[in-house]
Formats: sequence, C-alpha cells, structure tokens
Amino acid sequence: MFLRIDRLPVELPASPEVDPIAAKNVQELLGGRFGEMSTLMNYTYQSFNMRGRDKIKPFYSLITNIAAEEGGHIEIVSAAINSCLNGPRTEMEQKDSFPLDEVPDGAFGGHYIAAAQTALPVDSRGMPWTGDYVFSSGNLILDLLHNFFLENGARTQKLRVYQMTQNKAARMMLGYLFVRGGVHALAYAKALESLTGVDMKKMLPIPNIGNANFPEARQFMERGIHMQLYRFSPNDYKECASIWNGAATAEYIEGLGGKTELEFVDAPPSGGNLVNLAGIASSFAPNYAPEEIFEIANKLYAKAKNK
Amino acid sequence: MFLRIDRLPVELPASPEVDPIAAKNVQELLGGRFGEMSTLMNYTYQSFNMRGRDKIKPFYSLITNIAAEEGGHIEIVSAAINSCLNGPRTEMEQKDSFPLDEVPDGAFGGHYIAAAQTALPVDSRGMPWTGDYVFSSGNLILDLLHNFFLENGARTQKLRVYQMTQNKAARMMLGYLFVRGGVHALAYAKALESLTGVDMKKMLPIPNIGNANFPEARQFMERGIHMQLYRFSPNDYKECASIWNGAATAEYIEGLGGKTELEFVDAPPSGGNLVNLAGIASSFAPNYAPEEIFEIANKLYAKAKNK
Amino acid sequence: MFLRIDRLPVELPASPEVDPIAAKNVQELLGGRFGEMSTLMNYTYQSFNMRGRDKIKPFYSLITNIAAEEGGHIEIVSAAINSCLNGPRTEMEQKDSFPLDEVPDGAFGGHYIAAAQTALPVDSRGMPWTGDYVFSSGNLILDLLHNFFLENGARTQKLRVYQMTQNKAARMMLGYLFVRGGVHALAYAKALESLTGVDMKKMLPIPNIGNANFPEARQFMERGIHMQLYRFSPNDYKECASIWNGAATAEYIEGLGGKTELEFVDAPPSGGNLVNLAGIASSFAPNYAPEEIFEIANKLYAKAKNK
Amino acid sequence: MFLRIDRLPVELPASPEVDPIAAKNVQELLGGRFGEMSTLMNYTYQSFNMRGRDKIKPFYSLITNIAAEEGGHIEIVSAAINSCLNGPRTEMEQKDSFPLDEVPDGAFGGHYIAAAQTALPVDSRGMPWTGDYVFSSGNLILDLLHNFFLENGARTQKLRVYQMTQNKAARMMLGYLFVRGGVHALAYAKALESLTGVDMKKMLPIPNIGNANFPEARQFMERGIHMQLYRFSPNDYKECASIWNGAATAEYIEGLGGKTELEFVDAPPSGGNLVNLAGIASSFAPNYAPEEIFEIANKLYAKAKNK
Amino acid sequence: MFLRIDRLPVELPASPEVDPIAAKNVQELLGGRFGEMSTLMNYTYQSFNMRGRDKIKPFYSLITNIAAEEGGHIEIVSAAINSCLNGPRTEMEQKDSFPLDEVPDGAFGGHYIAAAQTALPVDSRGMPWTGDYVFSSGNLILDLLHNFFLENGARTQKLRVYQMTQNKAARMMLGYLFVRGGVHALAYAKALESLTGVDMKKMLPIPNIGNANFPEARQFMERGIHMQLYRFSPNDYKECASIWNGAATAEYIEGLGGKTELEFVDAPPSGGNLVNLAGIASSFAPNYAPEEIFEIANKLYAKAKNK
Amino acid sequence: MFLRIDRLPVELPASPEVDPIAAKNVQELLGGRFGEMSTLMNYTYQSFNMRGRDKIKPFYSLITNIAAEEGGHIEIVSAAINSCLNGPRTEMEQKDSFPLDEVPDGAFGGHYIAAAQTALPVDSRGMPWTGDYVFSSGNLILDLLHNFFLENGARTQKLRVYQMTQNKAARMMLGYLFVRGGVHALAYAKALESLTGVDMKKMLPIPNIGNANFPEARQFMERGIHMQLYRFSPNDYKECASIWNGAATAEYIEGLGGKTELEFVDAPPSGGNLVNLAGIASSFAPNYAPEEIFEIANKLYAKAKNK
Repeated sequence: MFLRIDRLPVELPASPEVDPIAAKNVQELLGGRFGEMSTLMNYTYQSFNMRGRDKIKPFYSLITNIAAEEGGHIEIVSAAINSCLNGPRTEMEQKDSFPLDEVPDGAFGGHYIAAAQTALPVDSRGMPWTGDYVFSSGNLILDLLHNFFLENGARTQKLRVYQMTQNKAARMMLGYLFVRGGVHALAYAKALESLTGVDMKKMLPIPNIGNANFPEARQFMERGIHMQLYRFSPNDYKECASIWNGAATAEYIEGLGGKTELEFVDAPPSGGNLVNLAGIASSFAPNYAPEEIFEIANKLYAKAKNK
Repeated sequence: MFLRIDRLPVELPASPEVDPIAAKNVQELLGGRFGEMSTLMNYTYQSFNMRGRDKIKPFYSLITNIAAEEGGHIEIVSAAINSCLNGPRTEMEQKDSFPLDEVPDGAFGGHYIAAAQTALPVDSRGMPWTGDYVFSSGNLILDLLHNFFLENGARTQKLRVYQMTQNKAARMMLGYLFVRGGVHALAYAKALESLTGVDMKKMLPIPNIGNANFPEARQFMERGIHMQLYRFSPNDYKECASIWNGAATAEYIEGLGGKTELEFVDAPPSGGNLVNLAGIASSFAPNYAPEEIFEIANKLYAKAKNK
Repeated sequence: MFLRIDRLPVELPASPEVDPIAAKNVQELLGGRFGEMSTLMNYTYQSFNMRGRDKIKPFYSLITNIAAEEGGHIEIVSAAINSCLNGPRTEMEQKDSFPLDEVPDGAFGGHYIAAAQTALPVDSRGMPWTGDYVFSSGNLILDLLHNFFLENGARTQKLRVYQMTQNKAARMMLGYLFVRGGVHALAYAKALESLTGVDMKKMLPIPNIGNANFPEARQFMERGIHMQLYRFSPNDYKECASIWNGAATAEYIEGLGGKTELEFVDAPPSGGNLVNLAGIASSFAPNYAPEEIFEIANKLYAKAKNK
Repeated sequence: MFLRIDRLPVELPASPEVDPIAAKNVQELLGGRFGEMSTLMNYTYQSFNMRGRDKIKPFYSLITNIAAEEGGHIEIVSAAINSCLNGPRTEMEQKDSFPLDEVPDGAFGGHYIAAAQTALPVDSRGMPWTGDYVFSSGNLILDLLHNFFLENGARTQKLRVYQMTQNKAARMMLGYLFVRGGVHALAYAKALESLTGVDMKKMLPIPNIGNANFPEARQFMERGIHMQLYRFSPNDYKECASIWNGAATAEYIEGLGGKTELEFVDAPPSGGNLVNLAGIASSFAPNYAPEEIFEIANKLYAKAKNK
Repeated sequence: MFLRIDRLPVELPASPEVDPIAAKNVQELLGGRFGEMSTLMNYTYQSFNMRGRDKIKPFYSLITNIAAEEGGHIEIVSAAINSCLNGPRTEMEQKDSFPLDEVPDGAFGGHYIAAAQTALPVDSRGMPWTGDYVFSSGNLILDLLHNFFLENGARTQKLRVYQMTQNKAARMMLGYLFVRGGVHALAYAKALESLTGVDMKKMLPIPNIGNANFPEARQFMERGIHMQLYRFSPNDYKECASIWNGAATAEYIEGLGGKTELEFVDAPPSGGNLVNLAGIASSFAPNYAPEEIFEIANKLYAKAKNK
Repeated sequence: MFLRIDRLPVELPASPEVDPIAAKNVQELLGGRFGEMSTLMNYTYQSFNMRGRDKIKPFYSLITNIAAEEGGHIEIVSAAINSCLNGPRTEMEQKDSFPLDEVPDGAFGGHYIAAAQTALPVDSRGMPWTGDYVFSSGNLILDLLHNFFLENGARTQKLRVYQMTQNKAARMMLGYLFVRGGVHALAYAKALESLTGVDMKKMLPIPNIGNANFPEARQFMERGIHMQLYRFSPNDYKECASIWNGAATAEYIEGLGGKTELEFVDAPPSGGNLVNLAGIASSFAPNYAPEEIFEIANKLYAKAKNK
C-alpha cells in the first residue's frame, strides 16, 4: 500500500515568466523513456514481481524504497512543468482575457487544449508514457544492471534539458534530481558490486561531469543530500542500510567536504510546499466562473469542521 | 511525496493451479484503459494539476486521497496476476524442469519471455498502458464526471473478468475491488452532487447488479468495508470527511444490515501479507543458481544488523 | 448503409490568410480522443453492436441518428482545417512559386509533406486517431453515460481551441459545433434521465459558460438550431422523437427567446456549399501540371453526358 | 453530410455456432491496415481534400461515391463479427449462465471484457485501427494508384481469411465483398487508365483466382452485382457514369454469361435486414436485468406515437 | 549476411548553417511511412520471405539487390540530417558554450535531448518508424505493385521536402535519391510488366515533373546514374540483369542525351566520404571532456598496430 | 554502404513439423524490444551518429562491424520463423488443400493473413518493432553500457524462448546466437573496461548459466566460434582488433579446451544455405497458379544468359 504526504520533495521557486517551451522540454523527463514515470514504474513493478523476496531482502528493500521516492519525483517534475506553464500568476485570470491566443507556435498543444496549462504523462513530443518502458525480468542482476543504465540515461537527458533552459523552476527541480539520481545510481552500483564483485561505481558519473558543477545541485550537496538515502515508509525497508553504507569515494564527494559516510536516514525528507496554481477562467479551470464552487467547498468544509 | 507500506490492501489466497489465461485476462484490469493504472494515474495527475487547490480543498483531498489508495490497487491486481502465474508453487523450481514448455497456446508470451511469469503494466492484449489514458482537464466538474464514468467502466470490466474465471486469487481480488470501486464511485457521485445538485448516486450500481450478489465481495460488505473511506496519509487529506459522510441509501447498503452511515476512517486499512513468489531456476529468477545471491544477501543483512 | 450528400452542414467563410498553426490546433478536434472521429465512431459502433435493439428502439435510433450527423462533423472540421491551410487562394498556385518554403516552424509537417496542405485523421500532435478511442460496452446506461461525458469533453476542448484562434473559418465551424454538440449532450442527458431518473441536464453546460456568449454560436441559436434534432435518413430513426421532445429549460434557451420546445426535424439541414480548394502545382495537387487531367476529366464528362 | 439507412448491404445468415476465433480473424478485415475502416477513411479523406474538385468531377465523384459504399462495408463486417460471436442465440441469455467462462484460450479478450461480445475497430491482434493508415496525398494519380493497391491488398487478405474459416456468416460477407471489392478495383483501374493510358485492369484479379471460384461470391455475380456501381446519394455523384461504363473484359466476366456492360445504378442496393443480437444478462448488455429499460423504451415509444 | 563499406553512396556538402527545422523535416524521409527505413525493410523482408525463390530468381535478385542499396539510403539520409544539425562546425564545441539554449521552438526535441544532435529512426513528428510499415504478402505481383507504389509515394514526399528547404546538404541528398528512386521505380515497373504485360513505366514520373528539372538531380543524370543498377554483393544477384536491360524511353531519359541503354553495373558505386561530426562537449558527445577517451583509443590503436 | 551475401550465417535444419506457436514466440527475438531488429538498428544508428569518429576509431569500428553482423541475425531469426511456419514441406501446396483451416487458436494471425506464413518485424504479441527501441545518445560510455545491457537482456529472452520450444530449427538458431551474442557482450565489456577500468566481463554470463550447457551452442563453441569476431566488410573496420584480442577468461571458455586467445577473423564466416520455402497455392504465394510466373522468370533468365 501507499501513503501520500502533501509536500513536494523540495520547494520550487515560481517561474518568472510563462515558458511553454521549457514546459514542453521538461515533459521528456516526466513521460519519456528515461523520465520519472519510467524510474517510478520500473522499480515499482520489480518490487511487485521479485521472486524469492524473503531471501534477498536487502535488494528488495532497496528497489522498493527507491520506487517510493520516485513517486515524489513524478510529482516534482510535474510541479516544475506547471510552474513553467503558469509563470508568476497568482491571481485568477480574468474571464475576458484570452491568454490562449498567445501560445508560441512550438508549444505542446495538449498543455492548452487538454490540460488547462498543466502537466501530462507524455514526453517532449507529446507522446504518452507507455508500460513498454518497464523492464522487470525477474533476474536480479539484470534488473539492477538495467536500473543502473536507466539512472545514467535519465541523468544524461536531464543534463541536456538543463542546457536547454534558463528557467529557474525547471533548473531547481533539475538540480535536486541530479543529486537524488546520483544517489540512486550509486545505490544500484553498490548492489551490483555486492552481487558480482564488479566495481560499477568507478564508471560514475556518466557523463563525466560532476553534479557540483551545477549551482542548483551544489547547494543540495553542501547540505549533504547526496550522502543520504531516505526511508520512505512508516516501518519498512530498513534493510536498505545493508547496502547503503560505508565511505563514499572522493570522486563522489567532489571535493565538497562535509560528510564522507553514506547515511541511511530513517524518514523521508521534510520537503517543501506544493506549487500553487492560480485558476484560469478562460481555460475553465477549475471553472469559467468558479465562485460558486469555491463557496460550496467552503460550506462543505465548514459543516464538516463543526461536526 | 509518497510512502510505501509492505502490505497488500487485503490478503489473497494462493491460486490452486497455474492459470496463465486468467493472468492474461486480469491484465486488462491492470494496464487496460479501465485498469488500475488508469485510476491511479488519472487521480494522481488531477491532484498534481488542480488549480485553485486552496479554495476547493474538500475536492482536492478527495481526489488525492483516492489516488493514494489506487497505488495499493495496482499492487493487488499485480499480486493476483502473480498468483495466477505462480499457482501453488512454494519451492524453488528445479533447474532441469522445463516448465516453460507447458505454456498454453493462448497465454501472453510476455509473461514468460519478458517477465519470468509475473505481471506487467499491459492490458489483456499485451499492449502497454499509456499516458493517453489520463484525463486531467482542469475543469473540476468535468474531471469528476470523468472519474465517475471511469469507476463505472472499470466496474463493468471487472464484473466480466469475474465471469471469465473461477480462479480463487483473482476472484478474491475482484471481490475486494468491487467494494472499493463502489466506494470511489459513490464518493465521486457525492462530490458531483454537492457541486451541481444532480443526484448521481441514483444511477448506481452500473451495471444494475449489486456487489452483495458476489460472495467474494459480500464478505467485505459484511465487515462494513463499503461504508469506509480510509485516509492514506500520515497527516493530510482530512477534508475528505466533508464529502464522505451522511447516511448511505438502502440501495447502496443492499439489505446487508450493519452500518448505515458512511465513515471516514483516519488511517489506511491494516491490510494483508504480500504474495510470496517462489524462485524459478529455469526462468533465471532471481537467477539460474541463486544460492550465491541468497548468501550474499544474508551476509549483507547480518553485517548491517551487527553494526 | 450510408448515403452521402455533397453539402457541408453549414457554409464556412474563406480563411483570410494561410494559418497552419490554427490548422494544427483544429486537428485535435478531428483526430484527437475528443475529436469528431471519436464521436462519429463511438456512436457508429454502438449502433452496430446494440443488443436487444428491437426492444429499445428509441435509444437505438437516437444513437444511430446522431452517429449519422457526426459524419457531417468530421467533414466540416476537415473543411475548416483545409480553409486554414488554404487561406484565400482561389487560383492554382504557380509552378515556380515555392510556398512550401514559408512553413512556420511549429506547423504540422504532415500537412505539407503527406497531405498537400489538407486535413488528416490525426490530432494536434500529429498522432493518428485510433480505434482504442471507441467505447462500446453494450451496457446501455454506461454507453449513454460515456457519450454524455464525451460530448462535454469535446465541448471543453472546442472552447479552448476557440480561445486559441481568431481564424474566421475555424470559429464559424466551432460556433456551429458548440450548438450541435449542445443538442447531442442534451439528447444523451434526456435519454439517461428517462432510464435512471437522474436529471443530468442540470449539469449543463460544462464548462459553465453558455453558447450564446460566442457570436459564432449565437447566430445559430437565434435561428433555433439548438432546439432541433435533424433526422439523417431517408426513412429511419423516427423513434428519436420519443426522447427529443418537450420544453427546453430556461438555462438551455439562454434567454434568447424564440422557440421553447425541442423539435425533431424530419430531414437533414439544407447545409452549405463545400469549401473550394485551389490546386497547388508545387505540392503536385492534383498534379504538377494538371491541365492534362483537367482536359481528360472534361472529355469523360462530355462523353458521358452525350450518351 | 451523410445519411444512414437501417439496412445491411446484404443479409447474413446466422452463424450456426459461437465462433470467437473466426470473429478474431475477421477483425483484421475491419480494423487492420487493409480492413474496411481503411478503405472507408482513405476515400473519405481523399474526397474531403481533393484540390480542383470542380475541374475533375468524374474522379471526385467516383472516389466520394465509393467512400459512401464503404460505410456499409464496415457495417457488414461488423455484422459478420457479431454473428460469429453471437452464434444462433436468439433469446436473452439467463442471468445465472456464465457463458464467459467458456471463452477459448486464443479468443480476443476485448470481445468479452470490453464489448459484450461484439465488434470493435481493431485488427486480428486487437490493435486499433489508426488514422496513419489513411493516404491522402492530393496527387490524383498517386491517390488512385494507392487505392488500386489497397483494394488488391484487401482482397488478398479477405481470400486468406476465407481459407481460415468455414463460418457461414463470415463467408457470406466475404463473398459479397469479393464482388464489391472487385468493382472498386476495376473502377480505380479504369480511372487510372483514363488518366495515364496504362491498362491496369489487365493486372486483375490479384491474386490470380477469379471470384466465381467461390460459391458465396458466384451467387452475387450470377445476379450481375459485379457489373453494377451503385449511386449512394440522394442526388449527387452522377459523374461516376463517365468512368464506370463500357464493356467488361471476358476475364472480368469469368464466363458467367449475363450482362456484359458495366452499369451505373442510380440508387443504393435494396440491402438486407440487420443482424439481430440477443441480450446477454451475464455480460450486462443491454443490462443485467433489462426488463425495466425495455419497459421504459416501450412507454416512450407509445407516448411519442400517441402525440 | 551483410557487409558494410565505410563510404556514403555519394558525398554531401557541409550544411552552411545549423538548421534543425530542415533536420526535422528530413526525418520524414528516414523514419516515416514512406521513408528509407520503409523501403529498406520492405524489400529486406520480402527477400527473406519469398516462396519458390529458386524458380523466380530474377525477381528475387532484383528485390534483394535493391534492398541492399537501400541500406546506403538510410545512411545518406541520416548523414543529411546530421549535416543539418551540425552545420559547418568542425571543432569540438567548448564546454561552457550552451548551444542547446538556442534551439528553435519548432525543433524536434529528441534531436537535442536524446541524440546529441543526430538522426533517429523517427518521422517528422518524432514518431518512430514501425514494423507495421512492412508489406510482405508473399504474392509476387502484389508485392511488386506495393513496391512500385511505395517508390512513387516516397518520391512525392521527397519532392515536397525539397520544396521546404534550401539546405545544400539536404538537397544534395535529395537530388541523388530522386535519381536512385527513379531507377527503383522503373525496375519494379519493368518487373511488373514482364509478369502482367501492363506497361507500368508509362505512368512515370509521379508526380509528372522530371528529375532533370532539379539541378541536384540533373548532375547525377548527366553522369548516367539514372541508367545504372548497381550490384551490391561480392558474388550474388547477377540475375537482376535479366530485368534491368534494354533501351530506356525518351521520357525517362528526359532529353539529356548520353546513354540510352539501361546498364547493370557489376559493383557498387565508388561512393563518397562519410560526414564528419565534431564533438559537442555541452551535449556530452562523445563525452564532456573526451580527451581521455581519445587518448585511450589512440593507445589501443597503437598497441594493435605494433603487434 | 552495404553489401549482401546470399548465405545465412549458419545453416538451419528443416523444422520437422509446422509449428506456428514456436514461430510466434520466436518473433519476440526478431521484432521485440530485445530482438535482433533492436541490436541491428541500435548499433547501426550509433555508427551513423558517432561524434569524433576519427579520434575513436577502435570503438567506432567495433560498433559498426557488430552492426553489420546483426544484419545476418535478423536474417537467421526470420529464417527460423519461416522454418517453423513451413515445416518439412518442400513441394508446392495443392490449390485445393486448405491448410489455413488448421491454424491453432493461439497462432499469430498476421502470419497467415498478412504474410503467407512467413516472418514479420513484429514481436510475440504481433506488435511492430519500433524506432523508439533505438538508443543513440552520442555519449560513448553510455552507448556502450546500453549495448552491454541490451545484449544481456537479449540473451535472457533467448534463453527463455529456448525453454519454451523443442523445435530443432529454432533451437539451432538459438544455439548459434547464444554464442554470437556472447561474443558481442564480451566485446562491449572489453570496450567499456578499456574506457573506464571497470571489469564488466566479470559480470558475465547473465543469467549465470554458460552457453556450453546447451548442446546447440556447445557445438559452435567446440569449433571455436565464441573466440572469433568476424570482419564484415571488404576493407574496413580492421581497428576492431585493438579491442578484440588477448586471452579469454576461464569462465568464458567454460572448460571446453581449444583456443584460449580471442581472434579477429579477417572475413565473414562462410555461412550456410538459405532456407528454402515451398510455394503455397492456397496462400497465393508466390501466386495461386504460379506456373506462368515460373515460366516468365525462366525465359527472362535464359534470355539474359544468352546475351
């Protein structure tokens, strides 16, 4: 079973302008083959399907716990897309404004026609994420090798989208995910090493440019977030500690100082506030004239409280 | 963010035989247009994307909280598929057994070739679930109408798959989801009614056969599970109570006696044990000769414990 | 069987300029999940597949007759796309003009490379309409609920595309379809109400902005077209009258005056002229130097007439 | 615009048994690349998109008129699928019968789970028909060459499905479509010949086995149906006569005697009765206990008649 | 089996500027339904699957040998796309340049995010080439008719992309493929004529504008390349000569003078140099700081040579 | 450019019976995500797209040369499918036999309806191979890591299909490809090791069962084929030798004795005869009554020879 916490993994700044092209590119990182829908669903199905789970608990717990973290990653990528599409708007858009008329030619039409300027589980072409992106072979070593590859493929694409945008909300999300993806890649490398003796972590980072080169990532490293694997469960998955432990290499630490030991944190991160999205009357979201439903919601809430 | 609990919503019996055809049909309920991947992702993206969230908290909380429950539903449908594929096997299959040679002609090849006899996010054709199944229009009434339709479409397909199989694991899962889907359909009906004044619940059940007719569902109704909306969060989404409350109609209660008031339960259900899946050497899951990785896992675990 | 009439449901003005971006956006309303291909094919397959047809003739006739009208809707949306792509050109484009060189970056390439600047059954991404958009469950109430949802989803997307373009041809088509879609939504609401007692029409319009707010729609309402269901058959489907009758609500009439009773018209509308599309030599449509085929066609025609 | 007639092109016998495998194979001829959805939509979009229509009326009318006939072809292929799935059942299936439990392993699950044992716009894999099957290049000769190829590809696949089934309903439909497809192939051959001078009809039939070899087709040829192009419009498309005229070759006549001149018939065929589909309670089609909706329909109808 | 030669069919000029829009449009000719992936794979699978091969060697050899040539065509179209994306860059891009930030709005995101500014087997929408584009019916006449149609459809789309770009690299590739595609269309026409007596070549060119009108094609015709079918095998497929022989028609020669007899050349063309692609540090291709891997490659090479 | 040799990599035995289910399963290895179409096209596009090729020739040559070998692999997998579908038939099937009537329920319909009982570029679901399976990131290390993963994923699926069939033709093909895939996996491991220092080959084989356990593979190992990388080019790609050299590990040799040094062979293998496929009249392949086209082919050939 799953629980939900009404917090983002980390708070995002408002996008200083409406930026549909950044939103379109960031979609690749949500619904593309190497997007967060893929990391989430690959690890989730591997966790559902693992054979001999009781006998390989450390590996089961690692994959399952990372799967749980990835839920927050589809959330934060969606939030970044929503920030890009929303820009700095905080007030309900006027009914007689026609903002939809200013859509740039290269925007993703679905953002406007289908989704009232919010995220969809599609890639930068607008093509949907598909279950065929899920690899769940049942062979533990092959699944881990896949996951190691997937994390590095995802990192490469994130680095490129970073190059393609100056958007503050997008880059903050990217900086955070560079760091968390780095944790996951290292975790899978360590799992593979324990099983095969092959020192996969020596291959990292792929591409060969460290996270500390990116200010949006560096700030999180300075807080030690690259050393921490969180536990995303009230009581389970403590066996991750048997893989995520020991000293990090100098290369991984990137000369930043601070902690040198990997740390399994017994809780999720405290996280940040969700992105607030103003209503847009001309997109009919949450409605053309939503005052009535605001009032209904208010009354329902009041009545429930008074009970 | 999301947390994970290492429990199924409800425990499933072992399937008394290997039943790949049931497994194939149940896939429709996982990865089809009306499968649990769809309910999960529709509500999840609607929750990510809701505009004016602060002003419509009861509706936001309802959709978000149900989304969290749906995570457990992809898990239990996957578990049912895995039970069907696994049958009563509890011991590691011998290396020199060639069980793959006995696959029935109409089986889904991917279960054997790709997934070591476990579930995949695909439908009964083997076609992948796709993000194009997600509807997130931003218009609150339209999204709720969609969700009401989706729950009823999902119920109809589940009822038909029930007719197509006698498999105990599959039917137990179905009975539980008939009941939980019924809760969700009613919840969306109540939300729509509060917003539009239209008495949608009068339309239920669709099709016009009550859950109590199915013994696997009736047992859960006798425990009052159809009256309860659980809260799937450590601290959030309490505003659901402002929609999920009041007396249920006689039709909804189906003459079963017991509770007559809808109840918002301040916790997830206690749930049941996960399905255990024996290793299969001839499918190389978790490996051809997995003793070595069992031992490695054991050592890692011991070492971690001793720290 | 089907017959064809060489008329559009309503005549469209020429687009005052070549407008490939409007054409791309309008494609969503032709080949998207909520496009006219979907309304056409959903109702058509429901009509092919209805069980117990003889016993539920009013519902069968309603769905089948609306299906027939939808054929004219894929035609008029295609005509609007063609107008956008064609602009005011009435003469054959010169052979040595290279108009294809002025395609805006965000245009849909298929309009130019595949289709000689005309419509295709694809959505605004260029992704094809697919048969998976068809819902034909065989359960009458569920199919009607689907159709009610589909019409409202289609309306929402049309309203947004309206916001995204000032193109006269596109907006005239949209105005007409706002009105006809409104008729269909109300017809399905009335059918559902007769079967379940639920007053679905109270939910309309979705979104909560009336058609009369849009001048291109209002003109058709002033002619009473929102009160009329046409019969699209030489002799059949007269049973629609048993559902489409009675007084319309004040909300539906939108204070426009005129007729107050719904009317089943015993013929299709008289319609308007088809859009004329000039040849384009540099797109080789109908050919690079089409004079020869014009002459052949002329001779064939003359010979046939003289017989 | 389009009109609908509540008749099939030709009446089909009931299938003597429930035959889901035949139904699955026949789906290829409905929703496959060479299925009737493809012929229908190819010609329909070519008719919407034709440039210089006024100057090439004979070709425009030919394509448009054949497009109208193809509407009846998706109908009759659907009817054949429905016959195969329905078998000889004429009474409503009992509620406590569980016919869904007897589905053969290789059946198409969607027929049972989604569509209550009726047709869907998908191919024999269950994959949906897609708009990417539509070819509408705007170049008249290329479009006609495509259509000629499409008809021959469709014939080849139909001949093979004929080989794969003994089902009477399927074979009757096939026999009729061998003949009508032969008319269309010849019509496109004649159109191409008039434009290019190339004697395409000499290539026919592809494959090189005549329709008269198949008793289900031969009966229609004996009635002269292979010599007739029908006009599917109240008033339009008379220009077809300028292409469809003259003597047929001996090869085309296949030594059957009878008419030797091609004939343009100024009306659609009289057609046959629609296939009747019994309700199936256990599939909830039209409902689980449909008596209530039968009664409602009856009352509506009575009330409408009495007005 | 297949061999590879490290040469392009013909050398391409560098693109004078970075031109991602041309690159996107040219993708249609690589991965679209009528792209070179389609010609390659259609003929390749027809060659794998041909029944009675020994008895129809001339046709087998023709299709197989053209299939081999098409391998070079996916290569040259990819090279043209790469030239468009690369422009005149010959030096490794600096690490701190952020060229990805200058991507035009309408570019294909995959070129930047997935492929480091190189080609992918997708069409101009970014949708992947699919195996469903392969037609391999086993009927020799139908397969040849398909191939004839495919070549003409491919030509039409190439002519349109030519109209859409002034890019020198793209147009050089197009000029060459106009000529080679012309050879293939004529070869299939001759094969069909030998089998059916129908003079298909009279239909050419489609569209009715000769290759000699395009300077980039004319230069190759002046060298007689339109008269030559090359043999792409060390020893096989000599039977092509029995179809590709005889005098070409005046229309085919287009008044260019030179050779008048078709010629089967007993070798592949000498070809031209491959396109050189500079590294791009900011795309991490071949790496962020590739000096190390350059050095490794160098050492490996030196060591191997010294052995 | 590419050349073709009219030989299979290795000769396959005839399948002792018609085995459509084996054919369907083997399709996964041709057109699935891990099929030979994927290995072929991944390496081919990586070779087209490699940046800085001149500076990393050993890696470029390795990938390009393996790509060329993979061409032969789609050929041999297709040949195995064709053997399974064809069985021991060597004579043209009689016209009045109706073999299509005996198709097992779970067969892939496309084999019969579309392809006259031969292979198609689709997977075991019948879904087409797609260009989205191609990974060509431009980052050399990431591409090599992908290729290493792809080879191991492909091996795992091949091992499972081996378990699912006793068919001699399929198993011979599989045995050969176990060995050749092993060579490719080791080659990519060595390339990665040279670039990163990580000893990837220690991870092999995945799954942990050696090829020598399978008699169909062991015979090729006894001939030393696992030690040899062939050069598939008249003159190019000799730089492979700088990676493919040195002693193989004992684990790789699997105690078989024989050669201990990896060997770069300066030619392709001699290969085996192509599979012969009898005509099938009732599938119209190569035609219904093909005598005429046999005779035409014969005359063409004679005429050409006499020139």
